[in-house]
Amino acid sequence: MSMSHLYTSKVDQKIRIAITEKLRYRFLELAKAVLSGEEPKMIIPKRTLSNTVYDKERKLLLLGSETFERRFLDVREVRKFMQTLLMAKIIYEALKNNEYPTIRDLYYRGKHTIRYRSFKKSIEEENTWDEQKESDAVLRDIEVYVGLLREDMLILSKEKGKVVGDLRIRSGDDVIDLSKMGHGAYAIEPTPDLIEFLDVNAELVLVVEKDAVFQQLHRAGFWKKYRAILVTSAGQPDRATRRFVRRLNEELKLPVYILTDADPYGWYIYSVFKIGSITLSYESERLATPNAKFLGVSMTDIFGDKNKKPYLSEEERRNFIIKAKKADIKRAQELLNYEWFKTEKWMKEINIFLEKQSKLEIEALTGKGLYFLMDTYIPTKIQTGDFID
Amino acid sequence: MSMSHLYTSKVDQKIRIAITEKLRYRFLELAKAVLSGEEPKMIIPKRTLSNTVYDKERKLLLLGSETFERRFLDVREVRKFMQTLLMAKIIYEALKNNEYPTIRDLYYRGKHTIRYRSFKKSIEEENTWDEQKESDAVLRDIEVYVGLLREDMLILSKEKGKVVGDLRIRSGDDVIDLSKMGHGAYAIEPTPDLIEFLDVNAELVLVVEKDAVFQQLHRAGFWKKYRAILVTSAGQPDRATRRFVRRLNEELKLPVYILTDADPYGWYIYSVFKIGSITLSYESERLATPNAKFLGVSMTDIFGDKNKKPYLSEEERRNFIIKAKKADIKRAQELLNYEWFKTEKWMKEINIFLEKQSKLEIEALTGKGLYFLMDTYIPTKIQTGDFID
Repeated sequence: MSMSHLYTSKVDQKIRIAITEKLRYRFLELAKAVLSGEEPKMIIPKRTLSNTVYDKERKLLLLGSETFERRFLDVREVRKFMQTLLMAKIIYEALKNNEYPTIRDLYYRGKHTIRYRSFKKSIEEENTWDEQKESDAVLRDIEVYVGLLREDMLILSKEKGKVVGDLRIRSGDDVIDLSKMGHGAYAIEPTPDLIEFLDVNAELVLVVEKDAVFQQLHRAGFWKKYRAILVTSAGQPDRATRRFVRRLNEELKLPVYILTDADPYGWYIYSVFKIGSITLSYESERLATPNAKFLGVSMTDIFGDKNKKPYLSEEERRNFIIKAKKADIKRAQELLNYEWFKTEKWMKEINIFLEKQSKLEIEALTGKGLYFLMDTYIPTKIQTGDFID
Repeated sequence: MSMSHLYTSKVDQKIRIAITEKLRYRFLELAKAVLSGEEPKMIIPKRTLSNTVYDKERKLLLLGSETFERRFLDVREVRKFMQTLLMAKIIYEALKNNEYPTIRDLYYRGKHTIRYRSFKKSIEEENTWDEQKESDAVLRDIEVYVGLLREDMLILSKEKGKVVGDLRIRSGDDVIDLSKMGHGAYAIEPTPDLIEFLDVNAELVLVVEKDAVFQQLHRAGFWKKYRAILVTSAGQPDRATRRFVRRLNEELKLPVYILTDADPYGWYIYSVFKIGSITLSYESERLATPNAKFLGVSMTDIFGDKNKKPYLSEEERRNFIIKAKKADIKRAQELLNYEWFKTEKWMKEINIFLEKQSKLEIEALTGKGLYFLMDTYIPTKIQTGDFID
């Protein structure tokens, strides 16, 4: 096992040392407290909804300033306290041993039964944790306590995001030319902060919800013709895809346009890219792309309005439109409550949907013609500023 | 649109011409029949279960020799006949126009309402098709009628499969070194028959069901250390991943080992790689890898048997094992009916499962330690031939 570093990247070896030290340093405070006769306790930022603030300036969901104490000498807190230390120990050991755990691993690694003698002298048993949601919760506490995201601690996960475009990156020990992927694509790593952008020749980022549409646009050469970095999240975006897109926007100063189905599920995907999850606001600060624009498909693309001719004919609407389901209506009404959907354009979008009770897949546009999507719809929308912020 | 080929690969341009011609030639027979005053009809191989044969020699599900006639002058057949021609026309036009449709596109492209005057002089309406399963069915008929898979006709789809390893390929106009993907991976194209294998330095193919475990093994350098091509199907394998793995086996002569969770769902994933789907046997001839071995996780890995020490301790079993659900039991009983599971080793595997009613995730092994999985479990299983064929 001591030779295991022979096959890992230099990037990982370097970051591993720094992060291990940072984790050790933070938890050393607890050991110091014990050694000096004080009660060990952790002061952790609250991850509650009431401590989540929408920063209108930065357009980000952020954690507020509230904290709570996780104490050892409190019978209501001690189980969580010990779970947190157990998790920190497992992550620390994984870092030391050149490992790359997943959150499922971390759950398995910590799962065991503790046998102890109670005050009444009977033998009792207690599980460290029973379900992954318990181990996930203490992992989140550690993330906010130490100020590191899981990826920083080399905790890996499955990853669906793909990219192609005229961009060179360094990942691990390799330099990769994302314009030389043939008909395939580059599958983004689960730790996109370790990617180094080398040089780029592009004017915009187009994020496509659907992998199949990404394949079509890639194959037809959309990114070459329109100098785009083409990304797909293959459905709901995962953390790495969100972080990667954010970095393209923030560091390379590229505008980000998001193309989804015309339905509340598509809007939600956009919302996750742009703002992040309400319940995980501490991640959003690094994962969200507040400048991302919703390119479409919008309700006015389908139905038009007083200043705009629709992209679909009457007959195409009849053939392509799908009737909204009850769950879609319910989801749309929920979105109306989100702060960042309370804009004139979004209100209009959602209200047309509620009125028409109609949705549309992107494939209806490729059904009309791949070159209609590629050479008419997308460029026109971008050039005329016909998107929603 | 006439310039659209400027941005597509030379590989696609070449295959497109050949395939367009082949499709045209096949359907020209119908036009010839009409011109010579004969009834146009298609003689199509039957895709029924009764015409599906398990070839024990080649270990493949194959279509038998039964055919049926799809006739124009038959009131029960004419709708299907016209749907088939409509689909052929749409595919042909997409090929001519440099397009890359998906099966969802094809559905949208053909979907419209035909108005006609009935014999009784009233105006009637009929839809070409109402649901995608209708358009998919005629696409399958065309595949077997023309003897081409959809990918051959440049019909694209979403694609989950990824690969890394010491292998150079040509895809589209590019040469790609799959050993230089950094921490990321190469996302396989939806048309893997167009990939050219250039040179390879590997001894085996390891296919991992779970993307997260793929990420871990990749990052720890498994493929470098053990000279492996590392592939993930990210769950149920799609067509392109299956075809890619088959080609690695058949053309590069590399043994293929499949690593899944220890449960009937994992066995089914193995079965899809090895044999294919019973209902789509015409695909299996090209997509299946009859030589694929089930590496594990097997029931004897968990529980051991008279000649084998288990890989898990009593305590690990207690912590890691998940109780099988009713759906798992039902699935296992179904698998007992499949011809290729009627072997001594599989019977034993399934019977242990039914007796213990226990399943295990691969992550339980990485939970035990990533280097346990990488340097003990996988190499030992391969070296001692402890897998199921």
